[in-house]
Amino acid sequence: MILCKVRDKCVSTIKNKELTGISFIIVEKMDRNGEASGDYLVAADPIGCGVGETVIITVGSIARTAISNDKAPIDAAVIGIVDSKEK
Amino acid sequence: MILCKVRDKCVSTIKNKELTGISFIIVEKMDRNGEASGDYLVAADPIGCGVGETVIITVGSIARTAISNDKAPIDAAVIGIVDSKEK
Amino acid sequence: MILCKVRDKCVSTIKNKELTGISFIIVEKMDRNGEASGDYLVAADPIGCGVGETVIITVGSIARTAISNDKAPIDAAVIGIVDSKEK
Amino acid sequence: MILCKVRDKCVSTIKNKELTGISFIIVEKMDRNGEASGDYLVAADPIGCGVGETVIITVGSIARTAISNDKAPIDAAVIGIVDSKEK
Amino acid sequence: MILCKVRDKCVSTIKNKELTGISFIIVEKMDRNGEASGDYLVAADPIGCGVGETVIITVGSIARTAISNDKAPIDAAVIGIVDSKEK
Repeated sequence: MILCKVRDKCVSTIKNKELTGISFIIVEKMDRNGEASGDYLVAADPIGCGVGETVIITVGSIARTAISNDKAPIDAAVIGIVDSKEK
Repeated sequence: MILCKVRDKCVSTIKNKELTGISFIIVEKMDRNGEASGDYLVAADPIGCGVGETVIITVGSIARTAISNDKAPIDAAVIGIVDSKEK
Repeated sequence: MILCKVRDKCVSTIKNKELTGISFIIVEKMDRNGEASGDYLVAADPIGCGVGETVIITVGSIARTAISNDKAPIDAAVIGIVDSKEK
Repeated sequence: MILCKVRDKCVSTIKNKELTGISFIIVEKMDRNGEASGDYLVAADPIGCGVGETVIITVGSIARTAISNDKAPIDAAVIGIVDSKEK
Repeated sequence: MILCKVRDKCVSTIKNKELTGISFIIVEKMDRNGEASGDYLVAADPIGCGVGETVIITVGSIARTAISNDKAPIDAAVIGIVDSKEK
């Protein structure tokens, strides 16, 4: 999984019918020190994250299990919000 | 998923038989500000996008669910057209 | 999917038993203008492409459906030969 | 799979319900000589690694089998701790 | 798939129980001319390759079929040894 910061919401009216009611967010990959990387992706958000939060994003076909719909054609989803990183 | 702009149609007469009737488009990955990245891929288009529209592309084996055919050997498909990004 | 040019055939005598009779080719990823990128991969070729043709390559576990064998351990396959790109 | 060094633990209280009780770690990809690459990812750790250990990380949807839960939306997991590399 | 040269064996005593008896090797991705790329990965080796051989590596969840174990959490495996590349 990758650590990302939530940057934007992403609104799409014309979309696949399996995605009705699913929120999409634009997230930016972070490096280890929490610095922005400039790499963005769009992820489904079943948790309800706020802009600026650090989240764990899972990538690939398994992402659909995060929204409990095997027919949802998504490849990225939030699976957790990060509290802290401990050494 | 990734945000892309639709650039071209891609015509293939000799193709896998599961792909008969499926449109393919050439899309270019966008950065957060909507600038072109120079990275291109080919995606199935079950929605009917126009050249120049910003779309959400899902990547990987799950893309086949976007065209409702589990036997279709595709790894990228349009799942939505973007209205706007809200902070 | 990605657009590639066929560059070489790839011969392997000692290989996984599910791959008997499957042709492998070495393809090079193209950019939008049909220029060589320098990135190569090996793909299964169920269609019978010729060296120099532009092909559509699907990548990932779904590639096995292009050769109709769910047990074939391949991650890339030709799914079509490109006629043209229309704007 | 990729060789990584364990760098941090990653704590998330608000997370997908299938991930309750699963430890997450932040790992850094290593090059062949064991040098740090600067690339990080988050992985599930079913083995119980210590910070500084060199581990084998599997990536993609198959990672869920490493924690024996097909519904777990994870894309990376530790599958082994490296003893040594022999030529 | 990608062309790689076998560089090292990789020994792991503490590993996932589905991987007992499976050999792991460290391979380096090659460019088209057989030059080293500096990119390394760890792959399961069901064929028994020797250090220095050029092999075809399949990547992703499908790799598990190369070792005939759907529960094996691996994302890369050798599927063939290259004889030659013919134009």
